[in-house]
Amino acid sequence: MARVVVDVMLKPEILDPQGQAVQRALPRLGFDGIVDVRQGKRFEIELDGPADEAALARAREIADKLLANTVIEQYAVRFDPAEADRVTEPAAG
Amino acid sequence: MARVVVDVMLKPEILDPQGQAVQRALPRLGFDGIVDVRQGKRFEIELDGPADEAALARAREIADKLLANTVIEQYAVRFDPAEADRVTEPAAG
Repeated sequence: MARVVVDVMLKPEILDPQGQAVQRALPRLGFDGIVDVRQGKRFEIELDGPADEAALARAREIADKLLANTVIEQYAVRFDPAEADRVTEPAAG
Repeated sequence: MARVVVDVMLKPEILDPQGQAVQRALPRLGFDGIVDVRQGKRFEIELDGPADEAALARAREIADKLLANTVIEQYAVRFDPAEADRVTEPAAG
C-alpha cells in the first residue's frame, strides 16, 4: 500500500481570497506580524501496490486530471512522511 | 521570516464526503486500485521573525483558534520544507 500526499495550491500570481480572509481575521484575534496566508487543499491518497515511482506517477496523473485546475493551481505529489522509511527515492512531484 | 505549513484534516473517525466523492470519481476516469482518499486543507503562513520554536507555537495557536475545528479536525504544524535548512529542530505539531 502506498500513501501519497497531494498538495494543491493556487499559483502564486493568482489572488487567494480565502487566504486573505484568514490573514485579515488574525489581527482581530490578537495575532500580529502575519505577512501572508495562502490556503489550498491537501489530499491523502492510498493506492494499491508498492510505494514506488509508479505510484507517484499515478498520483500525479490523478492530480492533473481531477484534483487540480492546472490553469490556476499547482500541485506537489509526495509520499506520506509516515511511509518515508519504505521509500528509496522520495521524489517530489 | 518564517514560513510555516499547517495541514488540517478531518479526524480519521469522521466521515469525509469530499474525499469519498473524489474516490468514487476515480474509477470512472480510469484509475483503479485507489483504496482511500481523504481531503483536507493546507495553509501556508508567513510570519515575521525567525523560524524558531516560537514561530511554530504561534502557528499552532492560529491553527487551534481559527484554522481547524478541533472537534472534528486535527492539524499538524511544520516549517515549509523550503525553509528546512534554517531550522535546527524541525518539530512537527
